[in-house]
This record gives sequence, structure tokens and C-alpha cells, in this order.
Amino acid sequence: MTNLTPNSSFSVTLRLQIPNRVGMLASVTQAIATSGGNLGQIDLIEQTRQQSIRDLSVDAASTEHAESIVQAVKALPEIKVINVYDRTFNLHRGGKISIASRIPLKSVSDLAMAYTPGVGRICNAIAQNPEEVYNLTIKRNTVAIVTDGSAVLGLGNLGPEAALPVMEGKAMLFKEFAGIDAFPICLATQNTEEIIQAVKNIAPVFGGVNLEDIAAPRCFEIEQRLRQELDIPVFHDDQHGTAIVTLAALFNALRVVHKSITDIRIVINGAGAAGVAIAHLLRKAGAEKIWMCDSKGIISTSRTDLTPEKQEFAVKAQGTLAGAMQGADVFIGVSAPGVLTPEMVASMAKDPIVFAMANPIPEIQPELVGNKVAVIATGRSDYPNQINNVLAFPGVFRGALDCRANTITTTMYLEAASAIASLVKPSDLDREHIIPSVFDDRVVGAVAGAVQRAARDEGIAKR
Amino acid sequence: MTNLTPNSSFSVTLRLQIPNRVGMLASVTQAIATSGGNLGQIDLIEQTRQQSIRDLSVDAASTEHAESIVQAVKALPEIKVINVYDRTFNLHRGGKISIASRIPLKSVSDLAMAYTPGVGRICNAIAQNPEEVYNLTIKRNTVAIVTDGSAVLGLGNLGPEAALPVMEGKAMLFKEFAGIDAFPICLATQNTEEIIQAVKNIAPVFGGVNLEDIAAPRCFEIEQRLRQELDIPVFHDDQHGTAIVTLAALFNALRVVHKSITDIRIVINGAGAAGVAIAHLLRKAGAEKIWMCDSKGIISTSRTDLTPEKQEFAVKAQGTLAGAMQGADVFIGVSAPGVLTPEMVASMAKDPIVFAMANPIPEIQPELVGNKVAVIATGRSDYPNQINNVLAFPGVFRGALDCRANTITTTMYLEAASAIASLVKPSDLDREHIIPSVFDDRVVGAVAGAVQRAARDEGIAKR
Repeated sequence: MTNLTPNSSFSVTLRLQIPNRVGMLASVTQAIATSGGNLGQIDLIEQTRQQSIRDLSVDAASTEHAESIVQAVKALPEIKVINVYDRTFNLHRGGKISIASRIPLKSVSDLAMAYTPGVGRICNAIAQNPEEVYNLTIKRNTVAIVTDGSAVLGLGNLGPEAALPVMEGKAMLFKEFAGIDAFPICLATQNTEEIIQAVKNIAPVFGGVNLEDIAAPRCFEIEQRLRQELDIPVFHDDQHGTAIVTLAALFNALRVVHKSITDIRIVINGAGAAGVAIAHLLRKAGAEKIWMCDSKGIISTSRTDLTPEKQEFAVKAQGTLAGAMQGADVFIGVSAPGVLTPEMVASMAKDPIVFAMANPIPEIQPELVGNKVAVIATGRSDYPNQINNVLAFPGVFRGALDCRANTITTTMYLEAASAIASLVKPSDLDREHIIPSVFDDRVVGAVAGAVQRAARDEGIAKR
Repeated sequence: MTNLTPNSSFSVTLRLQIPNRVGMLASVTQAIATSGGNLGQIDLIEQTRQQSIRDLSVDAASTEHAESIVQAVKALPEIKVINVYDRTFNLHRGGKISIASRIPLKSVSDLAMAYTPGVGRICNAIAQNPEEVYNLTIKRNTVAIVTDGSAVLGLGNLGPEAALPVMEGKAMLFKEFAGIDAFPICLATQNTEEIIQAVKNIAPVFGGVNLEDIAAPRCFEIEQRLRQELDIPVFHDDQHGTAIVTLAALFNALRVVHKSITDIRIVINGAGAAGVAIAHLLRKAGAEKIWMCDSKGIISTSRTDLTPEKQEFAVKAQGTLAGAMQGADVFIGVSAPGVLTPEMVASMAKDPIVFAMANPIPEIQPELVGNKVAVIATGRSDYPNQINNVLAFPGVFRGALDCRANTITTTMYLEAASAIASLVKPSDLDREHIIPSVFDDRVVGAVAGAVQRAARDEGIAKR
């Protein structure tokens, strides 16, 4: 982890008391630089004739690295460290989202309309015409973010409470990128039937369900059953969000190397929720040669330990990941840090494409392959070509909610991927620019529009 | 319903085109007045030399009344009704609450702290120390408002979708009055065990549960079981919120008439969730003579149709409500419109106290008894002495959340009632002023403080 770039997820703010003399602040910034810290914002808090109090924000590469930076500053003569704040922890205190009223509630008259007795007229209107729930309540713009805490990020089965910060973050992304009101539902059960029952029971308030961080293979059945049994769209983001953005990136990477999706051989390492969904979508998009690998190697018809989801992609070949990589055109990793070696990459076909998407540490550090690949992408924001679900799910739900699609289809996934890919103009397309930035504000509209068009073509738009 | 006062729950906004001549606007306001409409805000939208366009907001007493006002205006010569908006419906379009981010999300650095990879550090911190969920997530300030839609206001079993506007309104009240983030959970089941299971499964995100509009007797078991099986406070507002505010009003009404709670005979009409809870709390507060009535008359030991909750309050007396009222000191109605007659009130003891709390139409219209009662209170904002749960539940949850009480006790109910009553100074206390206004901003602090003190005294405050 020491070769990771410093980033704000490990940033600290140091509040320092610094004598007002030439060179004193410079001694601090020098100490931070020497320790490998990346200096960000500097705020002057207070200044007297003798001294200044300043807040310095510093990005580090790890908790230990942050601590060593602090120690280096503490070792400076005459500089007093008043306090050290962990910025990420600070930002999380009290949670990241809140409930806001959309209308004022300041007078007896406001109360009489928004609450009793006026609200009774609204209740009756919905009871008489159930469709009115989409006009007169939050349902039409509200999504449940549902998890059982069994596969939290790459961290594993941390349980529902520890999953909540991720779900709150997701709710922020829904709001920021698509104006959607999303609320976290972290379930105190990891039983498939109980999860299905819980989601069905809370469904009346929601216009859609985003499943999140639920472990495979449980996630497959939960999604399939909820799609059948609910009349609102259900979308497992770890599967389909990842698949959509991966396909978008692949479309453009193939343009860079002038290869066709029908010709290439693709190795997908990782056969969990994301890997299986990617394989499905790539096949729909025309890929014919997909070799999946899990921790035991190639998913081969000769193996007897395969779940139904894996069996669907079993190939005749057998062996290790290293074997699979020989002559492959594309590597797609949704697996674990560091499992791909430079030697494996060197054994690939000409103009290899590598998507090393394990988070936060990719299957291979981009620095290790450099110019030996045609295109490399990761899940990280500190390298080029970030493959990030936030390019897909806000627009997918925006489109589905706006046209009242009661389900989200594979056609929508394909159209969404094409829409994302098309935002990179041919003149801008190069090996370090195959996918738009997550802050490109055209993305949500392009994805939502593609989803709505697909919904209308398929006759499932209710509005 | 024709003798109801016009109020904003039936208000309309008329957009009118009015010739710019002396007396034209006066003809409109006169027509509205003659029709019995109560004129509110008048906004000038546009004005030319020939004519003005104005929005006039008018309170009516019913939908039919609003329609007759509109017809009266339409009948005026030269006045053109451009549009009529129902203000209550307008205000409900798209729902009444939204999700807001508490922190900005505008840069790669914001994303890296609030979402991946930074959020992973927060997840790990909670997984290692589960108590941290109260520091690092929304849990500490978030309440679930849970209903099954089986007893929506006084309207009956309308189902979860039609209940949602009430729950959204409640969420607004939680925010406005106590700064609490509350989210509606409207369940697609009316099965007791399934409701209990659903609430337990969603509990990880919430610091408390407010049960709402769940029919008796189901509500009693649900509350009792959830109190046992969850480690966060559970409070059925229709029971205990109503009981707290009723007791607060009774404390002060008894001061007005110089009677003691231990001496008086109280008739409670209505033996649902609210009636039973009021009876329990009044008994705890010292009331010794409580006669409950339901639709079949006095709840008597001679009856064989009583639920366990009703049996607990069965008395030797038997007969009708009219019989029960003879010589009674206090009537508390949580039942149905118009069931109390002036004759029954006339048969009460000296200085009768009448709380006619059926919503929106009380058990007796205050106009019908006038000065024949010492004190009359209703649930309505358009008469004096409004007995409204919003005086209790925001402060109860504020107090419980702030001290991390894991349950809400009867002692807290009593202390909350005393705290509310004490806000009416002796010098202000009179027959039309026994309870503070819902907009009295001292209320939430007084109630929260009382709840916290009780929690500390009882040793159940965790913070």
C-alpha cells in the first residue's frame, strides 16, 4: 500500500500555532513534503503580532502515513500542533444525509393543509385512485437503497450498521447527480426469503429499489424474485451498474485499438455479482469468447463446484488465471488487489486492454505496466479512465422513474452503456480518455434519455 | 358539516382577470363574502391599463362550499376565472419531504471522503465498535414513522399508499418542531407478526420507531413486542402522544375548576388505541374513577365481548354513554363526530370539562354548549384549547434520542404531560387557555428536558 498515491480519503487537517517569522510556515510545508504528504487547503484561523493559527489539510496514502506526517510536523522546533482532525471521520459525524421539508410549516394554515385535517382529503384521493400515489406523495422520486451488509465494498460481511455509511454516500450520489431522493434500508437479516419479504413490505413508499452490497449468489435470487413480485424497478447496482459502465469503457477501448467485440477473447477475473453481470451484458453486446476465472482458476466445464450462475459461462479450457491470460485481448478484474502480474499482462495479445477494477487496490498497479498496455482503466479517481458506477445508476433510475418503467431491462443496460460511451467524442478519444468524468454533467441526461427511449420501445413506460 | 368554520384545508386559489375599474375587485370580494368564503392572500400577478390578473386565496368549509364560492365568482359580469387551484392538492404534488446531503459533493476529493475509498474506513470503524454507528451515521437523529395504513386519521383502513401523505406530514412535523430526521415506512402487510418482523429488520438505520395509525387491538401487541425485542425507543403516537397531551390539558382544566384528579369521575368515550392509552395514563396520574365507553356503551364487568385491554377498565356500572355522562366531571372523547349531545353535557356535574377530540369533526360542536361548560377543548386549530399530539411526540423523541434512552417509560409520559401543562403560567390560565400553542417554541425543549431527566432518574440514559 505504500506505493499508493496520497488521496483525500486519508486526509488530515492539522491546526498549528506558528510563530510569525519568515520561514516558519515554509518549515512546515517542507516537512510535509519530505514526508510525502500532499498539501491541500491552508486556512488562516487567527493571527496576532507574534503568531498565526492555521489549518493545513494534507492528503496521505494510509492511516500510518498520515501519522508519520503528523509526527514530522510535531518534531519541528517552535511549531505547536494544537489539534489533528481526520477529515473523513469528521465529515461523517452525525451522518451524511437529512430529511428536509419541501414546503414551509410556519402557521396554523400550513399545518391544516400539510397535516390534519387537509391531508385527509389527499389520503382519500389516493384510496379512491391508487395511481394518485405517484402524483401526491414522494413515491415518484424516491428510491430505497437496500443492503444486508453482507458484501460491503471490498470489505466483506460487516453487517447492516457498518454498511450504513456506504448507503448514505449512495443516497448523496443519487441526489447530487440525478435529483433523486434515496433512503438507506439496512436489513438486520441475511436470509434470502426474509430480505425479499422485507423489501416487498416496505415497497409502497418507494418508486424503485436499488440493491447494494449483497453477497453472491444470494443477490441473484433476491433480484430475480423482487423483479417478478414488485411492480417498481429493481436494480442491483453491484451487478448491472458495474456491467453498464464496464461495457461503455470497453466500447471505447476497442475503438482505440481497432478491434471488434465479436472477435476478441475476454478474461473476467472474479465471478461474484459484478463478474457474472458483466459476462451477461458483454455476451448481449456481442462478445463470443469470454473466459471467467474465480479464485480456483478458469471456470471450466470440467469443474464440479460451480453454482448455476457460473455454469452458464463454463468453457472447455481449464487452468489458472495465468493460463487464461495467454493471448487474451481484454482483462476485466472485479476481484482482489494485486492478483494480476506484469508477466501475465506481457503474455496477452497485441494491444492489450486491462480493466483492473478491484477497490480500493486494483488487480495491478497501473505504474507496473505503463506503456505495455494499450489501455488501462481502474475504479480509482487518481488514475485516468475511472470506471465508476456513478456514471450509470443515477441516470438509470432517473430515466426509469420519469417514464414510470416498472422494470429495468437488458436493453436499457445496453442503451445506457452506448449513451455513456458516445459522450467521448472521437476527437477526444485516446488511451487515457475512454470514459467521461463522473462530474460530466451530460452523463445523467444521456443515460436517462437512453433508458426512457428503451422503455418506450419495449412498451413498459407508464408515463 | 355546514356549520364548520372555513379553514385552509379546503382553500382554493382563484386566478382572476379583473377589469381595471373602480369597484370591480370589490364586486369579487363581496361575492366571496356573501358565499361565506374567508378571503386570505391576494397577489397581483400582472397589470395592464385595461385589466389586472390577481390570485385570490379563499378558505372554504368543504369541497362543496369551495365549489359554490367559485360559482358565485364565475357568475359575476366582466370577471374572468382563468384558473382554480386546490391549494391542499397543489401543495402535495410530488410529496412533502426530500432527502438532502449534509455535506457538499462537488469534487473528486469530496467523493473520496464521503464515498469510496474513504467511506471504507468508517465502515471498518463501525464493524470494530458497533456503538460508533451512533456517531458516524444518521442513526442518532433518525426515526422511522411506521404504519400499516389500517387506521389512517379518522378515515379507517385506507392501506399503506393512502397513509403516506400523513406520514410525510408527520416527518415534516418531526423536522420543524424537533430537528429530527424522520422517514415514512408504510408497510404492505397488516399481519401483526409480519409488521413486527419488518420493523425489526429495518431497525439498524433508525434511532427510534414512531408507530402511527395502526388499528387496535393489533397496535397494542406490536408496540409491546417491539419494545421488548428492539434496543431503540418505540412509541405509538396515537396512544401515548394523545395520552400525554390529554393529561397535560386535564391538569390545567382541573386547576381552572379547582377539582382534584383523585376525586373526579371521568368518562372516556372510545376504547381504541387512544382511549385505552389515555385511561392508563390518567390512572397512573391518580385518577380513580374512569368509566370507558365504546360503541356498545359502558365497558362493564357484565359484558362478555371485551378484549383484554378493555377488561382492565371494566366497571360495575352498565348502560349507554348518556347514562355514563350523568354526574360525570370530565368527558374525554376519542370517538366519532357528533356523538355527544347538549343534553348529555347538561346532565354532568357542576363545572363540566369536555374534551371533544374526534378529528376533524368533534364529538360535539363547541358552539352547541357555549357557556354551559367550564372548559371545552377539541383537536382543532380553529377553536381555543387545541389538544394536538404535536405538543408531545417531537419533544419525546428529541429527549429520548439525545440521552440514548433505549425505551420510553410511563414516567416519561407523566413528566412530559406536567412539562407541557407548566408552560401555561397561572396568570394566563383560563377556560380558553389550558394548553400552549403548537407554535410555542418552548414546548419541545420542555418536553425533551422532562424526558431526559426521567431517563436519568430511571437509569436508562446511555449518554
